Amino acid sequence: MKSKLSSYILCLNSGSSSLKFSLYDPVSRQMEIAGVINAIGTLNGWFKVSDSRGTLLKNEAGLFKDMHTAVESLTKWLDEHQSKYPLTAIGHRVVQGGPDHRAPEMLTEQLLKTLKQFIFLAPNHLPEELAIIHIFLEKFRNLPQVVCFDTFFHRDMPFCGHHYPLSSKYTSKDLIRYGFHGLSYEYIMLRLKAKHIPIKSKKIIIAHLGNGASLVAVKNGCSIDTTMGVSPIGGLVMSTRSGDLDPGAILFLLKHNKLSVDELDNLLSKESGLKAIAGTGDVRELLEVGHTNATAAKALALFCYTVRKQIGALTAAMGGLDILVFTGGIGENLAVIRSRICKDLAFFGIALDSRLNLCNREVISSEKSRVLVHVIKTNEELVIARHTQNMVQLK
Amino acid sequence: MKSKLSSYILCLNSGSSSLKFSLYDPVSRQMEIAGVINAIGTLNGWFKVSDSRGTLLKNEAGLFKDMHTAVESLTKWLDEHQSKYPLTAIGHRVVQGGPDHRAPEMLTEQLLKTLKQFIFLAPNHLPEELAIIHIFLEKFRNLPQVVCFDTFFHRDMPFCGHHYPLSSKYTSKDLIRYGFHGLSYEYIMLRLKAKHIPIKSKKIIIAHLGNGASLVAVKNGCSIDTTMGVSPIGGLVMSTRSGDLDPGAILFLLKHNKLSVDELDNLLSKESGLKAIAGTGDVRELLEVGHTNATAAKALALFCYTVRKQIGALTAAMGGLDILVFTGGIGENLAVIRSRICKDLAFFGIALDSRLNLCNREVISSEKSRVLVHVIKTNEELVIARHTQNMVQLK
Repeated sequence: MKSKLSSYILCLNSGSSSLKFSLYDPVSRQMEIAGVINAIGTLNGWFKVSDSRGTLLKNEAGLFKDMHTAVESLTKWLDEHQSKYPLTAIGHRVVQGGPDHRAPEMLTEQLLKTLKQFIFLAPNHLPEELAIIHIFLEKFRNLPQVVCFDTFFHRDMPFCGHHYPLSSKYTSKDLIRYGFHGLSYEYIMLRLKAKHIPIKSKKIIIAHLGNGASLVAVKNGCSIDTTMGVSPIGGLVMSTRSGDLDPGAILFLLKHNKLSVDELDNLLSKESGLKAIAGTGDVRELLEVGHTNATAAKALALFCYTVRKQIGALTAAMGGLDILVFTGGIGENLAVIRSRICKDLAFFGIALDSRLNLCNREVISSEKSRVLVHVIKTNEELVIARHTQNMVQLK
Repeated sequence: MKSKLSSYILCLNSGSSSLKFSLYDPVSRQMEIAGVINAIGTLNGWFKVSDSRGTLLKNEAGLFKDMHTAVESLTKWLDEHQSKYPLTAIGHRVVQGGPDHRAPEMLTEQLLKTLKQFIFLAPNHLPEELAIIHIFLEKFRNLPQVVCFDTFFHRDMPFCGHHYPLSSKYTSKDLIRYGFHGLSYEYIMLRLKAKHIPIKSKKIIIAHLGNGASLVAVKNGCSIDTTMGVSPIGGLVMSTRSGDLDPGAILFLLKHNKLSVDELDNLLSKESGLKAIAGTGDVRELLEVGHTNATAAKALALFCYTVRKQIGALTAAMGGLDILVFTGGIGENLAVIRSRICKDLAFFGIALDSRLNLCNREVISSEKSRVLVHVIKTNEELVIARHTQNMVQLK
């Protein structure tokens, strides 16, 4: 029976227009509450909270004009529920902390100050994340708080995965391939382990496909390469990000189109990818119109094509492939995208069972498939909670 | 018996520090003479000419302080031999002619003027090439001259191979993935056809590995994707070029290191790749010291790794692989590099016969290899000659 004295770890995970939070019970090691404030900065804001059984505790429209307003609404909800859900610690997700901040770390004023130096590495993620952390640091001074970095999972990538072929004048400092989506990848590896898969002897590719999307190659249980590099713009073609480019394309934009550095950053982060081709980066919208709209069809084709190519590249990097996992909003839910990605990969020993795939089952490969293909719902908050628990040594 | 009235097509192919030329007999459809002026701009210049039987006609050191001096020496040699080798046409290799100049074209003053507009697309190749063409246009006004573009082979790449995920404001103009080394790829396809390989039904990757290096995926006889994009900087890690990058890495250099656009171009074209890691971009030099020098070993490992990954990516793009061809200075001659690239590709059905590989034989795969692996010496000049002959309709 659950003790009435339980207190909870609050896990925070902010995106560009959403604020996800969870309450984790360090005794039962389970999530008790999962909530999200969605569509921040739009007229369609929504605040939803449910318990571990899926019962909705709150499900209300609301106007959240910016992240600050959303954070205020969340802290108000936490205050109202503090007798039932007292907090014992807080865990934060942070995209990037430079070369010296990859392992989970106790949050201090000094760390927050240090992390601000790395805003230039992730200007579209870090400022908002640090602003939220600052609010929570101020408001919950009595609680231990932990910062978990999305680059941690890739910390031991070998030279070929980690290094740019650029002068050591730059690469000896902070210009290395960090890789991202590490908390999601950590969760997937935990799940595979829980399924009794011998993860240390398998060659695994995890495809985290959402608005941001990347793949990782995991060999001997460790990340050996990943599609994103120093920034979340790299790798795959994404909703609004370009992915990797011939540097000549960027020189073209700088020389011929005379873009400034800020214009270039904005273009490559927010106006490229699927959006540049089809006017929207929303894969669901594109799927709805893809059969009649040629540019939507082209955008989807390019998305699936670049994922497919990177599956090939990472398979070559590992010298084989045993397990392919789809996760993230697109990877977990859109059977047709998974099917298109895998369509021409029979050569790689990948064969989907179309019925299992349509039902979003945990294993969607057919019996004859040499590669096991999984669909696993990711849970970055659970990994944040576990790291936070370990850091503050809550028993 | 060869007619005494034969006249020849002069084929010109200039690199950054070399000027290759050949004399092609349009009647026998064979090369009669092959020559090169090497190490232009260094103290080790060399002028070498041999006939079709390999007999050296000239083999002399010389000081060629720049490309202009080398061209003067070549035209002097041509003048001295014009009674034996009268010219009937000239064919030139050109790296890039923008979107509207891909097929071979008759050289005119107007074309030369138009091509100058595309210097910004290939600033490290095109100025020199156009300067040489200008000299030959002036000197041989009586001869028809033809320009052959290295982008021709890739002209029909499908959307996913050709297109950047960037706003149509840029991509509707000249910012597309052109691909290069097309004349080399054309030659390899001619050779495969001559070996009675049914090239239209095979999935083929050609690896042109030299100081500049790229791979192409050929399906149904056509290029469907290639590693280089709008410029020769993209794709693989090369001797002094970076290859594709996370755009975030370039934004880093612009923002954090405050590089100017010209500094950036110079860095990515001339000071990156293997040279940035190991101090030299010469793969032979790196191989000599690789067993004792850690950075040389790392540079070689990264080179082979990126080629291997791109073999994986292009295999996925085609949905399979039947034939892999190595060509270019490195691909044709360095067995150890071919061996390292193929080392972990057993999963792809690639198995080399180490003895055949060491001997640089035309087929180096073992009997059990599902993929046929060829080594073919490229001959871009022959393709230039054939195009020139077709254009000027020499019988």
